[in-house]
Amino acid sequence: MIRVGIIGATGYAGQEIVRLLMGHKEAKIQWYGSRSYIDKRYYEVFQNMFQIVDDTCLDDNMEELANQVDVIFTATPQGLCASLINEGILSKVKVVDLSADFRIKDVKTYELWYGIQHKTPQFIPEAVYGLCEINREEIKKARLVANPGCYPTCSTLSIYPLLKEGLIDPDTIIIDAKSGTSGAGRGAKLDNLYCEVNENIKAYGVATHRHTPEIEEQLGYAAGKEIRINFTPHLVPMNRGILVTAYASLKKQVSYEEVKGAYDTYYANETFVRVLDRDVCPQTKWVEGSNYVDVNFKIDPRTNRIIMMGAMDNLVKGAAGQAVQNMNLMFGLPENEGLMQVPMFP
Amino acid sequence: MIRVGIIGATGYAGQEIVRLLMGHKEAKIQWYGSRSYIDKRYYEVFQNMFQIVDDTCLDDNMEELANQVDVIFTATPQGLCASLINEGILSKVKVVDLSADFRIKDVKTYELWYGIQHKTPQFIPEAVYGLCEINREEIKKARLVANPGCYPTCSTLSIYPLLKEGLIDPDTIIIDAKSGTSGAGRGAKLDNLYCEVNENIKAYGVATHRHTPEIEEQLGYAAGKEIRINFTPHLVPMNRGILVTAYASLKKQVSYEEVKGAYDTYYANETFVRVLDRDVCPQTKWVEGSNYVDVNFKIDPRTNRIIMMGAMDNLVKGAAGQAVQNMNLMFGLPENEGLMQVPMFP
Amino acid sequence: MIRVGIIGATGYAGQEIVRLLMGHKEAKIQWYGSRSYIDKRYYEVFQNMFQIVDDTCLDDNMEELANQVDVIFTATPQGLCASLINEGILSKVKVVDLSADFRIKDVKTYELWYGIQHKTPQFIPEAVYGLCEINREEIKKARLVANPGCYPTCSTLSIYPLLKEGLIDPDTIIIDAKSGTSGAGRGAKLDNLYCEVNENIKAYGVATHRHTPEIEEQLGYAAGKEIRINFTPHLVPMNRGILVTAYASLKKQVSYEEVKGAYDTYYANETFVRVLDRDVCPQTKWVEGSNYVDVNFKIDPRTNRIIMMGAMDNLVKGAAGQAVQNMNLMFGLPENEGLMQVPMFP
Amino acid sequence: MIRVGIIGATGYAGQEIVRLLMGHKEAKIQWYGSRSYIDKRYYEVFQNMFQIVDDTCLDDNMEELANQVDVIFTATPQGLCASLINEGILSKVKVVDLSADFRIKDVKTYELWYGIQHKTPQFIPEAVYGLCEINREEIKKARLVANPGCYPTCSTLSIYPLLKEGLIDPDTIIIDAKSGTSGAGRGAKLDNLYCEVNENIKAYGVATHRHTPEIEEQLGYAAGKEIRINFTPHLVPMNRGILVTAYASLKKQVSYEEVKGAYDTYYANETFVRVLDRDVCPQTKWVEGSNYVDVNFKIDPRTNRIIMMGAMDNLVKGAAGQAVQNMNLMFGLPENEGLMQVPMFP
Repeated sequence: MIRVGIIGATGYAGQEIVRLLMGHKEAKIQWYGSRSYIDKRYYEVFQNMFQIVDDTCLDDNMEELANQVDVIFTATPQGLCASLINEGILSKVKVVDLSADFRIKDVKTYELWYGIQHKTPQFIPEAVYGLCEINREEIKKARLVANPGCYPTCSTLSIYPLLKEGLIDPDTIIIDAKSGTSGAGRGAKLDNLYCEVNENIKAYGVATHRHTPEIEEQLGYAAGKEIRINFTPHLVPMNRGILVTAYASLKKQVSYEEVKGAYDTYYANETFVRVLDRDVCPQTKWVEGSNYVDVNFKIDPRTNRIIMMGAMDNLVKGAAGQAVQNMNLMFGLPENEGLMQVPMFP
Repeated sequence: MIRVGIIGATGYAGQEIVRLLMGHKEAKIQWYGSRSYIDKRYYEVFQNMFQIVDDTCLDDNMEELANQVDVIFTATPQGLCASLINEGILSKVKVVDLSADFRIKDVKTYELWYGIQHKTPQFIPEAVYGLCEINREEIKKARLVANPGCYPTCSTLSIYPLLKEGLIDPDTIIIDAKSGTSGAGRGAKLDNLYCEVNENIKAYGVATHRHTPEIEEQLGYAAGKEIRINFTPHLVPMNRGILVTAYASLKKQVSYEEVKGAYDTYYANETFVRVLDRDVCPQTKWVEGSNYVDVNFKIDPRTNRIIMMGAMDNLVKGAAGQAVQNMNLMFGLPENEGLMQVPMFP
Repeated sequence: MIRVGIIGATGYAGQEIVRLLMGHKEAKIQWYGSRSYIDKRYYEVFQNMFQIVDDTCLDDNMEELANQVDVIFTATPQGLCASLINEGILSKVKVVDLSADFRIKDVKTYELWYGIQHKTPQFIPEAVYGLCEINREEIKKARLVANPGCYPTCSTLSIYPLLKEGLIDPDTIIIDAKSGTSGAGRGAKLDNLYCEVNENIKAYGVATHRHTPEIEEQLGYAAGKEIRINFTPHLVPMNRGILVTAYASLKKQVSYEEVKGAYDTYYANETFVRVLDRDVCPQTKWVEGSNYVDVNFKIDPRTNRIIMMGAMDNLVKGAAGQAVQNMNLMFGLPENEGLMQVPMFP
Repeated sequence: MIRVGIIGATGYAGQEIVRLLMGHKEAKIQWYGSRSYIDKRYYEVFQNMFQIVDDTCLDDNMEELANQVDVIFTATPQGLCASLINEGILSKVKVVDLSADFRIKDVKTYELWYGIQHKTPQFIPEAVYGLCEINREEIKKARLVANPGCYPTCSTLSIYPLLKEGLIDPDTIIIDAKSGTSGAGRGAKLDNLYCEVNENIKAYGVATHRHTPEIEEQLGYAAGKEIRINFTPHLVPMNRGILVTAYASLKKQVSYEEVKGAYDTYYANETFVRVLDRDVCPQTKWVEGSNYVDVNFKIDPRTNRIIMMGAMDNLVKGAAGQAVQNMNLMFGLPENEGLMQVPMFP
């Protein structure tokens, strides 16, 4: 039985890890870390856990935690994981970091976009970017996994095969993304109040969102060169779900079958990526609560562009589910253990 | 492995049975019955089931179905199950009927409130009302279980202990209930359009809702006499969830502890009924996707009334979950098999 | 032209006063008071006001304000208006207070339920409770109007005629109310975050909500005696709207026509109270954005109770609209000036 | 007083015309046409109109109607207006058609995208495309105005100045649009049920949506040449609102001020187009219920693209509001008469 510690257990992503691990046969949570709720019963913070979790919230003493568990999930604000981690800890325990601290290989890029100094850049090289479908083998051997951002997961998986197969022009990629509100976290901010979000849609972080360089880096690997994209996130009045609508120019005329073949090359054997049937557009509701990413595409011969679409649950495949998937890989467990929830509809 | 047939598999409740049984170790769906979608792939009707369910929708030939499965769930409009069932079928297969056909013992009451003639009243006496926490032993022996209505489940479980213990005056019960929109089914009706329901709340079926006699019958058993209640349902702009707020006059002055004790008498050992901590009000979100019913109460010494509250997911404990719970009991399986989903929040 | 000052102009109720007064022919806002946003452009706080309001937010210096305007609206937390007001101010300017400070005649009751000491109880006797349909004549002569709470407005108007006509037993009144989230204000609190409210319904303040004594006082006037009620508010996932479902025992057998007659006696000539046609249940969406209250009732002969229903927009008739209606009365203007918005649907 | 007839008065757009005209000083509705609800009171179809509109629904006899009114609004499915109109009617009455029948100058394009034969192509040449800010003078003289589609209105107004000023490459335009659900109309379709739309987002009509050629035609006029765009609409869980996020490559390096200047050139004197302050992203909630379109832009120097954004209420500026604006122009009234509603927030 893998002993699990969570730092940041009382955020939405942290709580989702708890939800998923309650159904995991090989993992047991030992440490519910939450600086804000120390000594409070976990279920008092999340009453859905009443009579399910009896534990009390603890602090985020990573040194101590490293002695008691086999794996630590850090579901914390940017900078915290990087500030707590050290060689001693990494020699004792595996770490899956849900923040952005170890996602970007170029520390200057990280510091520029996040506006903070990286405290432990020495661990960046060894950190593996935990997009399981793409970096599976490296993840299996990693001590430190950088769990991908929600937008980057959905964006990369939607576009990756076509870039890799050279079907689209990497310099023409535009990603228009839409996210439910849980992506904004559980902090009490005016912008996230019910009345401000409900019956409303807006773009935010236009041309400046911090997931941009992360997506560019991952798509760059697929393209085999540095690329620049446009990425525009939008806030949608719903709790969960990310939808990516991505646009690119085709490098040549292609048929539906060719493009479908490209997706199948990469995803036919993937449990969690579902390439939908022709002309079926992904919907976030169809993956809610599950670890699936639904992808599909539409060729527009009039403009010679292709529209690539992906939908997933931002808290599952976009955060906690992928984190558990990474843990499964790191510990040699079946990759889908604890992750076979059927999407909940409606 | 129990072989399962579903008639009405493409309604919201039918689909929820599918979702739950996908995680059930001892049951396998053999027959996805849906008159409206015959020969269509099930996942084309519910794309969340893509790559999860490959079966094709079949008709509702109950005779044939009875030869192929061990249990039939009928998640169909009122009157259909009663019109299809017969002794030959019941001798071969167990039936869990999610409609109201066999819930009410007095056939005249049924016919009055539902406005249809009961086709097979001869089976009413043997049908067991499938409120598992109350009729567990009878359910274990039943061939035909009448799965309770959503409002009656939540209402009865919220009020039952206090009536049974004689703490409240049965003639003063008022139930004000609030339901998410999935309770209205998947039929394409103007009243259930997004724009009609969203940003809106209304009462409906005031003093005439058909769940009234069902609640009265069940509460009557607890009270040991016939009772009349007020029951007012409301439509709430959300997909899932029922909240019951019930009022009654206390028969004597009682303390918090006495009332809590009454609830504990009946529910302390129940997996799926959670009596919340003092002053914590049930919220539908805390049980979403799960088979739990959260109940609690508040004594108002100023008026000598008690407010009883219950929250559950109308599609799970209020329909499909309880149906599976009934199946588990009927087949001697662990009662919670396939039903331990942690509520999904947010 | 009446010169208007608003203290608390950047809350939801304050902003709604602004919205309504933009269409008012006889009033002009001179002072946008907002302690939190001093020196900020009003439209930067509420971008809907871009190119409509150019003013800058000012402080809440009531002394100064009294010199510059004819009427002050205080849309502020409990206690603030009572702490700022004095004879000098009241001799210069009329005040419509949207807080609870001057609603309750018995200062001890106020202090008990609100948990604060009243700073200027000497003004309570002269303050007029601004429920226009009931206290119209007193309001016309008032210097200080206590604008009613949202729940009390909807509750009182729904029940008043039947109490006044002696049709219902005042000791049996139970009010089950449902409110949109704007009623909780614009403060950044975890409980009001989108993800906490959306897809959720709960009761709150059960048996302890501070609007209880206010409703009891007003209904007591109608009943001609002190009464105790049960009042249970619920939080509904929508921005605007209050629905009241009230229950009471009938004192004698009555016909639909008799009860309808009672409502008509009081409301037939009222612009803003609409007694709906038989069997039409009020819906909050049908009054959204308007100053209307829709009321109706249903007799339940089985239990000899009557269900009284009322729906209104909590920010309009439940706050800003009624405040403007009071202003109109106080200044001898047509009562509906600036208030004839047609409800917005959908 | 202008006498108004509406054909299709019981759809969402038709009802919105009613709402707006209730506050219009120079227009009076004489004819509430609704094939589905003939002889029914209008307020029974839309209870928000109770005690506001007492009229009964009539048929869609356009010949008769033309004798009784000065202007007809047709808020009807595609093809109906074209099938009813003739020279006799147009000689007697002005027509504002909210369908697509007269929006597209090339009848073959219309027939291709809409899949119906145009019954009266002879009126296409004289029909004026009713985008008031752009075709104001022609509208003033028109007998027949083709009221623009919701997406085309928001898209064109967001992009027009930059195309007209030659700042962007017309061959690179990609429009990613998001709409509330009222845009889908009031028909009882499964796809528009509350439970299907709520907590969900999806693209639809990808590369095939019928507003595409309409947008291309209008942007083509601005560009001075035929253009092809990508247009992808999305369905958002909200009642009202359209948000357009449009992308294009800049033809040269430009400063914020240059682009702002381009917008100001066209919109500085426009009442209903608000160019927001720098870095403020349009939100649909800020224009809800009003005739405003909020636009803004962001230059991305990294990719040399510009992101253009526009937000409006699809039922007001995107349908009924613009129709009234057109009527005002056609009859020489102040263009904003009846249209100065302040956006409702929240």
